[in-house]
Amino acid sequence: MHTALVIGTGLMGTSAALALRARGVSVHLRDVDSGAVRTAAALGAGTAQPPGAVVDLAIVAIPPPLVGRVLADAQAEGVARHYTDVASVKAEPQHDVIALGCDTSRYIGGHPMAGASRSGPLTARADLFEGRTWALTPTADTDTETLNMALELVALCGAVPVVMQAAAHDRAVALVSHAPHVVASLVAMRLENAGERAVSLAGPGLRDLTRIAEADSRLWLDILSANAGMVADLLEELGADLERMVAGLRSIATTDEAKRRSGAETVENMLRKGQRGRARISGKHGTRPERFEAVTVMIGDQPGELARLFKDADRAGVNVEDIRIEHATGQPAGLAHISVAPGRAAPLSEALQAQGWRQR
Amino acid sequence: MHTALVIGTGLMGTSAALALRARGVSVHLRDVDSGAVRTAAALGAGTAQPPGAVVDLAIVAIPPPLVGRVLADAQAEGVARHYTDVASVKAEPQHDVIALGCDTSRYIGGHPMAGASRSGPLTARADLFEGRTWALTPTADTDTETLNMALELVALCGAVPVVMQAAAHDRAVALVSHAPHVVASLVAMRLENAGERAVSLAGPGLRDLTRIAEADSRLWLDILSANAGMVADLLEELGADLERMVAGLRSIATTDEAKRRSGAETVENMLRKGQRGRARISGKHGTRPERFEAVTVMIGDQPGELARLFKDADRAGVNVEDIRIEHATGQPAGLAHISVAPGRAAPLSEALQAQGWRQR
Repeated sequence: MHTALVIGTGLMGTSAALALRARGVSVHLRDVDSGAVRTAAALGAGTAQPPGAVVDLAIVAIPPPLVGRVLADAQAEGVARHYTDVASVKAEPQHDVIALGCDTSRYIGGHPMAGASRSGPLTARADLFEGRTWALTPTADTDTETLNMALELVALCGAVPVVMQAAAHDRAVALVSHAPHVVASLVAMRLENAGERAVSLAGPGLRDLTRIAEADSRLWLDILSANAGMVADLLEELGADLERMVAGLRSIATTDEAKRRSGAETVENMLRKGQRGRARISGKHGTRPERFEAVTVMIGDQPGELARLFKDADRAGVNVEDIRIEHATGQPAGLAHISVAPGRAAPLSEALQAQGWRQR
Repeated sequence: MHTALVIGTGLMGTSAALALRARGVSVHLRDVDSGAVRTAAALGAGTAQPPGAVVDLAIVAIPPPLVGRVLADAQAEGVARHYTDVASVKAEPQHDVIALGCDTSRYIGGHPMAGASRSGPLTARADLFEGRTWALTPTADTDTETLNMALELVALCGAVPVVMQAAAHDRAVALVSHAPHVVASLVAMRLENAGERAVSLAGPGLRDLTRIAEADSRLWLDILSANAGMVADLLEELGADLERMVAGLRSIATTDEAKRRSGAETVENMLRKGQRGRARISGKHGTRPERFEAVTVMIGDQPGELARLFKDADRAGVNVEDIRIEHATGQPAGLAHISVAPGRAAPLSEALQAQGWRQR
């Protein structure tokens, strides 16, 4: 790829432009908001001048409902050899692209899984997509050349490509992101008017569960709106499971022994299914869950405590794969749960003990 | 407190016994399983000999359905001046205690919020309750002396007492622990049969949300069963919210502009309520949420990387309040999200930059 046109210089478009510029690609910037283009250009994302010749790739980085129209106009103009977009849903834009009679052989949808918490060119970063999954959704007749151009874009941005159908993509993000976000919000909602004492019993599990409910509600309304049907479908399936769970618990609460037994079976089966589903994403590298061993250490709150812990782990020659810190209610101390590779927990535990660390 | 009798030497009872022993209390141990008593005694939790005189406090540490009967027997025996238990639900035992004609002035229910992932005396630890909330549920006529004895037990175990009504306790744990656990399992369940590619789009939000679904399903069946009615009630309320959310999303998915607007309003309102509920538990010290500032640093996967990061933060004189590590899909590198006190992010960021750390 030598030249690109980024249409829409918000967070996503400007970040892609910055990444391409850093790899030596000539980038042209276009936006209905001339101020946004100037800002992006000032950040070094490219030039506000229109391209003098047909560019290799046009990247449409605007909200989902507008993608089809803007892409049709760009193709009519003949501005690029290949076209993609970065909208967070893929079925609606693809449908529009087909309905508007675009050349679907030269178009492939795209969605980098990154950067949803703020917007605008000023929040853009060349490394926004580094290490993130970037879904690519070809049409029925997307050219291999167009696919390869998109793969090059993904590679230049340091992301990891996953090719899938548009509808499958939308269902997948509803499953792994949109519906879970709603569920976290529903659980968090119930805390709004709970008593102070009830809230004081909350532990780290609930805090982790509801963390994503902190996100900007306006932004998430837009995300959910663009995939509303799919998210509603998934939430309904989840609602049916919820009803089965409630029925199981109600049976357990009766005095009828046979009912109690069948209720317990229902509940335990569902908990087991949850364990198996969770196991598919528990690993640190996403697609390939590894089993880590854990060492739990009590830590104080004074500066340097964690640094000292890591130095001691390092001295023991053990790599810390992951760490989770659990702070005790009303106490300055906490627990550090350290994950290490299989077989490394024992030597780490021994070494930390020798250094005087209290362990659990 | 000078003397105590622990009835039931599993994880909870033995841990309480170890904590009391460490503070110089004479502890007697009793269990229907003589092997469990011997194990607990061998761990230094106390003596298997029956007490020669009336003890200060009897701690009943057995499953909820058995608490009433065992407490009635112990009171008939006149073994202690005061009585408490540590069962995970409080309404059922209190009901039984009253129905069996126990002296309710000498009894107070208790529930330390700790130690649910394994069982048996071998997993016991003197510090199991350190820094944890310990709910105390008096009856209508619990003596102040009995309350004070229970407060002393909580203090000797290093826990933080919260006094509340038995029914309020059961509703509170359903709200902050039991129902959220079920919800995490339901979300995780949906991943069990999802496609490999869909799963590959999962990010850190979903991983945090479903972490508690990893827990032992048999143990959680017991926990949920003991509070089944209350958990079912709460899940039904959550189910009603879920239906409102689905209805809102369905309205957004229509072409009717008025419907779309009202659907969007419903969804956004619920997301906002979720933000407010979440804010009540987002702080690291449970009851008093503080706002932290964040610094995000790119880290490699080689040993010593985190140690170096913490050493550099320490040198900058900044205390790391919390850390979350996000590993990139299919990449050895990751991001460390570091939380620091308000006003400390800028100096930390500057210091880390000077040390060559790449930041986001």
